[in-house]
Amino acid sequence: MAPSLDDNNNNNNKIIEDEMTHLKSRVTVENVKYLPGIKLGKNVVANPDLENAVKDANLLVFVTPHQFMEGICKRLAGKIRSDAEAISLIKGMEVKREGPCMISSLISEKLGVDCCVLMGANIANEIALEKFSEATVGYRKNKEIAEKWVQLFNTSYFMVSAIQDVEGVELCGTLKNVVAIAAGFVDGLEMGNNTKAAIMRIGLREMKAFSKLLFPSVKDTTFFESCGVADLITTCCNGGRNRKCAEAFARNGGKRSFDELEAEMLQGQKLQGVSTAKEVYEVLSHRGWLELYPLFSTVHEICIGRRPPTAIVEFSKKILPGAYSIQPVDTLPTSFELMVDAFPRFLNAINASP
Amino acid sequence: MAPSLDDNNNNNNKIIEDEMTHLKSRVTVENVKYLPGIKLGKNVVANPDLENAVKDANLLVFVTPHQFMEGICKRLAGKIRSDAEAISLIKGMEVKREGPCMISSLISEKLGVDCCVLMGANIANEIALEKFSEATVGYRKNKEIAEKWVQLFNTSYFMVSAIQDVEGVELCGTLKNVVAIAAGFVDGLEMGNNTKAAIMRIGLREMKAFSKLLFPSVKDTTFFESCGVADLITTCCNGGRNRKCAEAFARNGGKRSFDELEAEMLQGQKLQGVSTAKEVYEVLSHRGWLELYPLFSTVHEICIGRRPPTAIVEFSKKILPGAYSIQPVDTLPTSFELMVDAFPRFLNAINASP
Repeated sequence: MAPSLDDNNNNNNKIIEDEMTHLKSRVTVENVKYLPGIKLGKNVVANPDLENAVKDANLLVFVTPHQFMEGICKRLAGKIRSDAEAISLIKGMEVKREGPCMISSLISEKLGVDCCVLMGANIANEIALEKFSEATVGYRKNKEIAEKWVQLFNTSYFMVSAIQDVEGVELCGTLKNVVAIAAGFVDGLEMGNNTKAAIMRIGLREMKAFSKLLFPSVKDTTFFESCGVADLITTCCNGGRNRKCAEAFARNGGKRSFDELEAEMLQGQKLQGVSTAKEVYEVLSHRGWLELYPLFSTVHEICIGRRPPTAIVEFSKKILPGAYSIQPVDTLPTSFELMVDAFPRFLNAINASP
Repeated sequence: MAPSLDDNNNNNNKIIEDEMTHLKSRVTVENVKYLPGIKLGKNVVANPDLENAVKDANLLVFVTPHQFMEGICKRLAGKIRSDAEAISLIKGMEVKREGPCMISSLISEKLGVDCCVLMGANIANEIALEKFSEATVGYRKNKEIAEKWVQLFNTSYFMVSAIQDVEGVELCGTLKNVVAIAAGFVDGLEMGNNTKAAIMRIGLREMKAFSKLLFPSVKDTTFFESCGVADLITTCCNGGRNRKCAEAFARNGGKRSFDELEAEMLQGQKLQGVSTAKEVYEVLSHRGWLELYPLFSTVHEICIGRRPPTAIVEFSKKILPGAYSIQPVDTLPTSFELMVDAFPRFLNAINASP
């Protein structure tokens, strides 16, 4: 939402107020900065006063950069209706060394409400033009609440499905950005269509394996939903900023840093893929799983200049000879075959970790 | 392989000989028509005499348009080594009303040999340039044979995995062309990235559901392999002829027929997606499943001019109200939610069918 972010939550009020100035009056509601020319509907009310905005609300929809959420939750705690329900459209979360901090969990814990998520292949201006698309609601336990959210969001051109896998849906939204960086490298190196598709596929596998390792409840089928394969396609194949900056990075042979390219190309916005790759790397490194996620780990090593962009297609050499050849399909989804053998060890490790 | 095909197998000899003229002598083997400038290796021998070519061979690799296979099998029956093994790289099969005729089965039955398949996101000229890609070997029972094929094809830039799901792998290669037609319509209508990704995702789901209905042994995980999601991406996002002609069809509002566009754009080649969509439609219609495969059935109805290209994003209206909202993820993969309830009926129907 906000073009320039920092982690200081004290700045949030100022930024939210700045953003509100882009919203015109109630009569002709329009976001002149981000969606010029699109009428948002007369029932949309721009309200810069957070506490006032939520006072009587029974359905809370959160859409903000994830850095803001901790501060927003602090301000809202104890000020919302006891029967309120929340949904997060925030794509992103913090993967801390001791484990991931999911935004939906943060909202649930801090506000004491149920929190679903909504993710999918949803480029905003295309939805605004009412082009057909899909989205996925992830819910934890309460199917009735999920049905309510589906009813609220679903239209003839926006088809919403609900699945009972809140972590899986939310992790898709975050991890796809790491794959988009890899896809951008492939584009910058002009490796062609086969390579791009292979990297996206390997990325999807690592997304699935990583999500399932962090949350054993995550379901394979989630990755066939809009939040999974469809969002991955839009993020890796089009003009998204992660893919675009990574392409520029590779074209420059890694000689210009991501910080430099971000400053030049994004007017102060930060690339979520680069920071997520770092966080994922820390988790993998901490748990000794780096070699099992060659794509995720290589992306980070390229981003920090430890390896050249061309390394994105060299990771296959890291796999033990022969290990890639035959894979039993009935096992749990894996990041390459090695994981099949190592899986019980991972589950033990993950259960033993704090 | 051959630019102009018909079903008359008597023409095959002539066509094979024509194709052979594009292959230069043994010393500098090169296919000057399809891969000019690429040296094929000194161990590649162009041999227009089929019987002679297979005489002492213990590994047979078939790559030819699928229309030729019945004639080729007839000519080879009884003339190959008893210990020979075969692999088919042929993307395509005949979906007949009474059931699908898989090329690997045809080879196995007619020649009395084991037959694996090799599929994947494999645009030929990119592989020839040694750009990194992946491929999938599908095998029926014999893991040792699959390992042999992997060993034969695998290189540092061509990563091959083997999975025990010959029908799943082979069906991916065929059905993706129907999805590519749908993707082309979306491109021609300029519907944008969200719509394209949604259509590809729905297509992948229908591929999975259709394959599993025809062969209950088909595995979900197959669709995460190179033959599945990766091949779908290259076929739907790039210059493949199915996508390209469908784009032109939609740009013309369906007013110029596929026959006309094929003749103009493909120099006599036929679009496999259009004929596969027809065959799939016949199977679905015969079994009363049309409404359960809105994407597959709509593609065919658009191709024959029964509906306009814009119908490709209108199929959601065919779903019963509310049926789309909540889907149990633990059930078998489905083509939309309706299939969940109807699945036992399908299995009965399929078992009862001839």
